[in-house]
Amino acid sequence: MSTIVAVDIGGTQLRAATYKENQFQPIAQKRVETKASEPNAFSRLIKVIEDIWPQGQKVDAIGVSSPGPVDPHSGVVMVTPNIKEWRDFPLTAKLTEHFGVPAYLDNDANLAGLAEWKFGAGRGHHNILYLTVSTGVGGGVIIEDRILQGHHGLAAELGHSTLQEDGPLCGCGQRGHLEAYSSGTGIERFVAEQLKAGRESVLNPEKKNSAFMISEAAKQGDALSIEAYSIAGKYLGIGVANFLHAFNPSIVIFGGGVSQSGPLLFDAFEVSLKEHVIHPRYLEGLVIKKAELGDDAGLLGARALAELKLSS
Amino acid sequence: MSTIVAVDIGGTQLRAATYKENQFQPIAQKRVETKASEPNAFSRLIKVIEDIWPQGQKVDAIGVSSPGPVDPHSGVVMVTPNIKEWRDFPLTAKLTEHFGVPAYLDNDANLAGLAEWKFGAGRGHHNILYLTVSTGVGGGVIIEDRILQGHHGLAAELGHSTLQEDGPLCGCGQRGHLEAYSSGTGIERFVAEQLKAGRESVLNPEKKNSAFMISEAAKQGDALSIEAYSIAGKYLGIGVANFLHAFNPSIVIFGGGVSQSGPLLFDAFEVSLKEHVIHPRYLEGLVIKKAELGDDAGLLGARALAELKLSS
Repeated sequence: MSTIVAVDIGGTQLRAATYKENQFQPIAQKRVETKASEPNAFSRLIKVIEDIWPQGQKVDAIGVSSPGPVDPHSGVVMVTPNIKEWRDFPLTAKLTEHFGVPAYLDNDANLAGLAEWKFGAGRGHHNILYLTVSTGVGGGVIIEDRILQGHHGLAAELGHSTLQEDGPLCGCGQRGHLEAYSSGTGIERFVAEQLKAGRESVLNPEKKNSAFMISEAAKQGDALSIEAYSIAGKYLGIGVANFLHAFNPSIVIFGGGVSQSGPLLFDAFEVSLKEHVIHPRYLEGLVIKKAELGDDAGLLGARALAELKLSS
Repeated sequence: MSTIVAVDIGGTQLRAATYKENQFQPIAQKRVETKASEPNAFSRLIKVIEDIWPQGQKVDAIGVSSPGPVDPHSGVVMVTPNIKEWRDFPLTAKLTEHFGVPAYLDNDANLAGLAEWKFGAGRGHHNILYLTVSTGVGGGVIIEDRILQGHHGLAAELGHSTLQEDGPLCGCGQRGHLEAYSSGTGIERFVAEQLKAGRESVLNPEKKNSAFMISEAAKQGDALSIEAYSIAGKYLGIGVANFLHAFNPSIVIFGGGVSQSGPLLFDAFEVSLKEHVIHPRYLEGLVIKKAELGDDAGLLGARALAELKLSS
């Protein structure tokens, strides 16, 4: 029976937990706040892991979930938005050197998809499309029960699919990506532009209106806010149609804050998805579901990755 | 040592060949012309296979490549443009019933990709994007040495990715797909529209100008024809950038007639691809190559599929 230490390097928290095989709940866990400015991120990480390391028991592997581009094949964190000092940082090699056990790494969206496949909304499915719709849009893809990583481990970057060549600016500097339309940032940008152009709304044009504030205004009938979510849903439908044609999954799982917006987003999404698939068979038996694991997706994905690696 | 009978149901020909494992050349092969109007397609297929069936030797499996949507999991040809009488036709079940050996089926683009992986331009690569750019645009994807098929076997329909929501009409009835821009049909449509609008060109606006005729005019300096290929190349670059983000392959292989156009298509493609990838690492070590197997890709892919199934 294997014992796994899972680590989730999140935006605001660093979490670690120890899991026994076939036991859903961890036998130990800890979380600490992260501060981007604080140095010695690796020492702090070591400390958190040591705090939950099981005494007198063998640990078989460490699994790590990290945001930003990582190379899962070499275990290198290329860049991570939260820890500025880590650039091309050989995280798994350093963990193995310190703890003497193998360590495995992948990015947060891939591992959230893997977690939903093994423990959450995707159980029983073999081909899964996971999308987190939040500040950005991230993807995780499971194909025949395996995580899609690609040659350099950079696959499933689905937020950066061009849907409209001359569309709005994306956070990455390019135009017309799914993320530029359907992320919280995209929704906020659309509203800010329209307010600046003098469009009427209950929202204050002098302030920054968050995606959540816009969703609240929409629920009170604000036409601009309703339109913003409707556009986000429409392009989410076009993007998902493209991904159905590419991957033909049996389930699409939505995580992330913006995916909590209900009919505001998903009414337009469903109309658009049906309109943009090229054959009704892509929708036959297709399950569309919300993610079930919430904040634990990173930890559980890191755990699932380590368990998969040990058994392969 | 296995013996495979491979069948390629092509647009104008029906081909069959018998292969011995570890021997590239077939020990027998036959081709006949196909006529869409001719009935009894299945009887004709049986006859061609019987003609190359090895006497006194065991055949281990039959592999079949077919155009159009097929279900590789159930072995059903849903629709095929060449044989009108086959609609939801249980091809592999009927072949197994007749010949008493297992039969496997997939579509022509998937199998051309598989053939290039095993015998052609993609040898030694584990993650492959194959695109055929011809009358249409078709895709075949290999992920970690396995063919990407998806839940209903409809994955890798990459020609029908939306790149511009309000773009030109595609053969499938939708707008702005990669195929609408970069296929031979897309190039012909653009030129016909421009000629109709009174644009100057050496091409005759009263006639149907084929993609090949347009490429010849372009080579003689015709500005409209050069522009047509340049637009095709630009959108091919946007599409491939999307697919690199999705699959992160180590090689992109181009098959099909339009991909023979050289710099006319690929100069604009390369500029556009570089412009549209979100991180230079997607291009690091990326090989971009022409397909090597030509007309034999269907037969060799059908063979590779059967060999893979036998060994799995």
